[in-house]
Amino acid sequence: MGTQTLTAAWIWYPGDLEIGLHREVSLRRDERGTIVPPFWRLDTFYGSVKFRKFFELEAEEEIALAVEGQYNITLDGQLLYGNPTSFKAAAGKHEIIISVVNDRCMPAIFVQGATLVSDRSWLVCCNNQIWLEADCGDFHLQQQSPSSFRLPVEEIVPVEEVAGQQALLVDFGKEIFGFLRISPLSGNGTISFYYGESQEEALSVEDCETFDHDHVDFGQNAAVYVTKKARAFRYVNVICDEAVHTGPITALHEYLPVSRRGQFNCSSERLNQIWEVSAYTLHLTTREFFIDGIKRDRWVWSGDAYQSLLMNFYLFFDQAVNRRTWIALRGKEPVETHINHIVDYSFYWFMGVYDHYLYTGDQVFVRQQYPKMASLMQFCLNRRNDNGMIEGYGDDWVFIDWADMDKKGEVSFEQILFCRSLEIMAELAELLQDPSQANYYGEIGAALKRQIFDVFWDETQGGLVHNRVNGQLNGQVTRYASMFAMMLGYLNEEQIGTVKADVLLNDCIQKIKTPYMRFYELAALCEVGEHANVLKEIEKYWGGMLDLGATTFWEEYDPLLRPNEQYAMYGRPYGKSLCHAWGASPLYLLGKYFLGVQPTSPGYATYRVEPVLAGLEWIRGVVPMPEGQIEIYMDRTQVIVSSDAGEGVLRIRSAVPPTCELGPLIDKGDGYYELQLNQQGIIYPIYYTAL
Amino acid sequence: MGTQTLTAAWIWYPGDLEIGLHREVSLRRDERGTIVPPFWRLDTFYGSVKFRKFFELEAEEEIALAVEGQYNITLDGQLLYGNPTSFKAAAGKHEIIISVVNDRCMPAIFVQGATLVSDRSWLVCCNNQIWLEADCGDFHLQQQSPSSFRLPVEEIVPVEEVAGQQALLVDFGKEIFGFLRISPLSGNGTISFYYGESQEEALSVEDCETFDHDHVDFGQNAAVYVTKKARAFRYVNVICDEAVHTGPITALHEYLPVSRRGQFNCSSERLNQIWEVSAYTLHLTTREFFIDGIKRDRWVWSGDAYQSLLMNFYLFFDQAVNRRTWIALRGKEPVETHINHIVDYSFYWFMGVYDHYLYTGDQVFVRQQYPKMASLMQFCLNRRNDNGMIEGYGDDWVFIDWADMDKKGEVSFEQILFCRSLEIMAELAELLQDPSQANYYGEIGAALKRQIFDVFWDETQGGLVHNRVNGQLNGQVTRYASMFAMMLGYLNEEQIGTVKADVLLNDCIQKIKTPYMRFYELAALCEVGEHANVLKEIEKYWGGMLDLGATTFWEEYDPLLRPNEQYAMYGRPYGKSLCHAWGASPLYLLGKYFLGVQPTSPGYATYRVEPVLAGLEWIRGVVPMPEGQIEIYMDRTQVIVSSDAGEGVLRIRSAVPPTCELGPLIDKGDGYYELQLNQQGIIYPIYYTAL
Repeated sequence: MGTQTLTAAWIWYPGDLEIGLHREVSLRRDERGTIVPPFWRLDTFYGSVKFRKFFELEAEEEIALAVEGQYNITLDGQLLYGNPTSFKAAAGKHEIIISVVNDRCMPAIFVQGATLVSDRSWLVCCNNQIWLEADCGDFHLQQQSPSSFRLPVEEIVPVEEVAGQQALLVDFGKEIFGFLRISPLSGNGTISFYYGESQEEALSVEDCETFDHDHVDFGQNAAVYVTKKARAFRYVNVICDEAVHTGPITALHEYLPVSRRGQFNCSSERLNQIWEVSAYTLHLTTREFFIDGIKRDRWVWSGDAYQSLLMNFYLFFDQAVNRRTWIALRGKEPVETHINHIVDYSFYWFMGVYDHYLYTGDQVFVRQQYPKMASLMQFCLNRRNDNGMIEGYGDDWVFIDWADMDKKGEVSFEQILFCRSLEIMAELAELLQDPSQANYYGEIGAALKRQIFDVFWDETQGGLVHNRVNGQLNGQVTRYASMFAMMLGYLNEEQIGTVKADVLLNDCIQKIKTPYMRFYELAALCEVGEHANVLKEIEKYWGGMLDLGATTFWEEYDPLLRPNEQYAMYGRPYGKSLCHAWGASPLYLLGKYFLGVQPTSPGYATYRVEPVLAGLEWIRGVVPMPEGQIEIYMDRTQVIVSSDAGEGVLRIRSAVPPTCELGPLIDKGDGYYELQLNQQGIIYPIYYTAL
Repeated sequence: MGTQTLTAAWIWYPGDLEIGLHREVSLRRDERGTIVPPFWRLDTFYGSVKFRKFFELEAEEEIALAVEGQYNITLDGQLLYGNPTSFKAAAGKHEIIISVVNDRCMPAIFVQGATLVSDRSWLVCCNNQIWLEADCGDFHLQQQSPSSFRLPVEEIVPVEEVAGQQALLVDFGKEIFGFLRISPLSGNGTISFYYGESQEEALSVEDCETFDHDHVDFGQNAAVYVTKKARAFRYVNVICDEAVHTGPITALHEYLPVSRRGQFNCSSERLNQIWEVSAYTLHLTTREFFIDGIKRDRWVWSGDAYQSLLMNFYLFFDQAVNRRTWIALRGKEPVETHINHIVDYSFYWFMGVYDHYLYTGDQVFVRQQYPKMASLMQFCLNRRNDNGMIEGYGDDWVFIDWADMDKKGEVSFEQILFCRSLEIMAELAELLQDPSQANYYGEIGAALKRQIFDVFWDETQGGLVHNRVNGQLNGQVTRYASMFAMMLGYLNEEQIGTVKADVLLNDCIQKIKTPYMRFYELAALCEVGEHANVLKEIEKYWGGMLDLGATTFWEEYDPLLRPNEQYAMYGRPYGKSLCHAWGASPLYLLGKYFLGVQPTSPGYATYRVEPVLAGLEWIRGVVPMPEGQIEIYMDRTQVIVSSDAGEGVLRIRSAVPPTCELGPLIDKGDGYYELQLNQQGIIYPIYYTAL
């Protein structure tokens, strides 16, 4: 329990804000006026909870309270009748219990006395006999209750308008998310808004993915009209009845107020633009939670969110959205399905918890999630086959990627992620001083890893084969398992070599199409030093979208399609999402592999900086840490690094031994040199010669 | 899956009607204007579900639908845009999925085509990958949706009114439940209703348990006014502002429409009156669910409800309220606490499932509940100590009864109920063809039974001692474990003898005070042939309440208290509930042990009739069966029995061999004779001589 302070806060059952909000957000998806609810179980907040606090007063105190819900107060075992908004407590020791019931919004309380205030030192229980530390956010005013929370909006004026008969095509110049505002609006009738991520979509009344038909009844009274549902659009096609009269239209862009703590700049304007559009894409999809796309699905998908979480570390370093998303994804007990019904997505959830811990050092979050990690892992363990391998059962979805592939039986990729999740459980159980469980998970993980290589490693092909069905090995090598095995450090030097040569750089191996799986493929290529290739690929693939006028990056992009074929997906002409979080992966690639920064122990207590030019003239950037940041500059003769916290190692490759006045550069062989960055707030200038 | 019929019904996720309604009902408790929510977890309906049906049409069909919630329809994988209230399906095979989202009331659908209708043949899923048969009730009209369901009301006119200044004391002559109706009501101001189960309570503005302060604003317009919250009362003290003008007041008594299928009559008018008031008490507390009392708590308590369920078999034989109550009590997964947080109450829940099956033969219900029985039992098994015995842990409540007693450690009574629950699991697992689980539960149960007798049976005292704490046996014998062990058939002849003499009829053993535990004590006395004593006790104890003017039976009654001390409980002057289900136990005792009817195999396929006069001149009665009933008449020379179904055995005691023209009475020794009742619809007259 934390220390009591005098700053009161709204408090609630831990996780319930996220889980309740997740339900609300998830149900906002509609497609042409038809709700499309997620196909996974939606949990919600507990509707009946109790808050409890033992406290001692030096003097009598008048205590005010505000409650979201119906409530009663029991002070020292006595029910206080009525619904008091304040009450007195005498000097001395007390126990207070406030029971709150609410099925419309999350039960929450705000207690403000001279010394007794609601804060994290209160306990809360959903009547299951388990008292947990109450949760609170940034709601420190009685009037600002959790249920009244809304994301802020910013008014945006169109860059172009084309008026027709009772119709208006509005272009906001870039993809945005939010509401439309018409001021003034008068008259009676229907006003229709057809939204488009592209102009073609907005003009396609028959096929655009989202629209609103609003009925207004203002008569002669001019009013300010704001649409009800937040939508994703760059273009809006407004069509209204003759009797409706519209004034100027603007957009109210709704956004999460986070700042860009990470930066990237380099000698390639193309790449800078790609980074900029990536950052904007990630900002649009980083909201209450990390959502996949802002037009569609607007859902929280674990695999997608995991990539957003990784990118977040190189842009916003907003820890809160990571926590919100991970709590929402996991939901409540019991675990009945994989996360999002997808086998791999359960594992990405474990990996997200771990990486959040690695980058932020947030042990509190790990401790909070640990029981839910354990029950999800038990669910996974229960879904092993007789060989101890995980398979998709029944309606489980083995996703991996959109590409055509066999997903039956024992899929090597799933075993790799499963193995990693077990290692994570072992490591975090150790951290939380649960050694028997650490041992338990560790042993299962180690056995699985041995088995993966026994079964799937193909010496001839130099990689892991795809799957085994009913004991029959599928001889095909795909990229997925091999590249993950490499990134997770499961391969020896020789295996890394063959995976690089025979799998990653082998054009005969089935290609990866989605930006989603390319995220990992390009990361893997960087891991084996293929930065220059990756750079070319980024400029070609993401640059290709820019050439087609993208203001945000897409769910999928096929350079071979003609421009007018780019918008279709899922059998619908405008089915493709043009603002999709997984499209923003250059943020991660450029931050982790070009600026070259990553933590080597939790919370950046130690870290590594290995900047790589990969043919660029210079790069410059900032990578955020929990407190402070790392700044890097590199050109062909100089590297400049500084950091606000932690102890780092700078690693560079140089044709000659590099020099630095602040410390020795140790020769690590093969042209690599390392410098210890032990001093915070100091600028380390290093002189070297690019190879 | 059932056979499709053309009668459409509203359908929903199985159990969600009960669980959602349980939440609603449970939150209706208030005490002097302050909500008192239950201290157990309240579950609710799933807010996002999918309904699915595979069907084949011979011809194109126009299909209408109504939905409680937002929805979409997918026909053969294609989303039907908009929110159609009807759609066409062509001849041929189809799959339809209707997704429904609702957080205000339970998602439900009503589908009506020429041949495609919503019924139990549809499947439903809460997006957890498990498709269950949809549930439906008696909602066969589109306009009568489940959420619009209300219990009926009946208008009741006061028997007496005493008018004061702006005040009116109304007496409805007997305890009722519902609303007040004033017609006409006009004026502006506050009108207050102080409710009383007794006149004293209604007149005590300061201490009555429930009141309403309603603000009306009718001005000169005379209106019909009905109060908002259903209350329990015989008396109402109405006090209103001068500017409020009231016309005649009546009550709208809200009740569950069930009929009394059981009857009891005898030569004692006192006993007849006790039966009548018991029947009325049970009817008042038999509503959406079996609740404990109508003034308070109005909650569903497993131990209380189990007694209502047993009484129900001798009065209403309403199977639906049993099922509703048992589903509501169990709630959803995960099991985190005992039912109502009480160890014994988990076990009564198992016993209720079993007895419902025994009396009704309803295997469908057992099959539906089986997974939830298994998870609750697993929870119980996880709460065994190292000796394999169950204990109360943490905030678990070991209730047994209100009497003062040690409830720590291994309480013998709890082990007895646990053992019985394990036997039930074994037997029902066998029924559902789950032999490995039957074996599993059976073995644990058998081992526990051996251990109970090894540890707790006291040869010297002739009964089971109360408990063992930290290996230290408490030498005190209490009635609870011994009498349950006897009723459950766990004792041998000798043990039955000592329990009867040394425990049940031993005044040195701590007395049982509540009607709740007396239910079992009196049943146990009947089991050992102490009918005459039981009869005296019923006439004295329940008759005592009648003498004090009871129109319903009470939560607790102490004949030694003066009349004006009778209403206090829980430290509040009117805290005692004067209409409490467990007060109605004479219904069960008279039906099962005096009319003497009980099933000996599920659903009354076979049954036993063992009528006992116990000193009465004659008794006459009806005991309902799932289909039909058993009628019994007995005086000192004649017994007349007839039955509509099943095969029975009549067992009577006679001074001489009895005679019956329809079959032989077999001498069973000790004056007992048995007659096979093989023919339905036939009246069996038997001539005998009372001992």
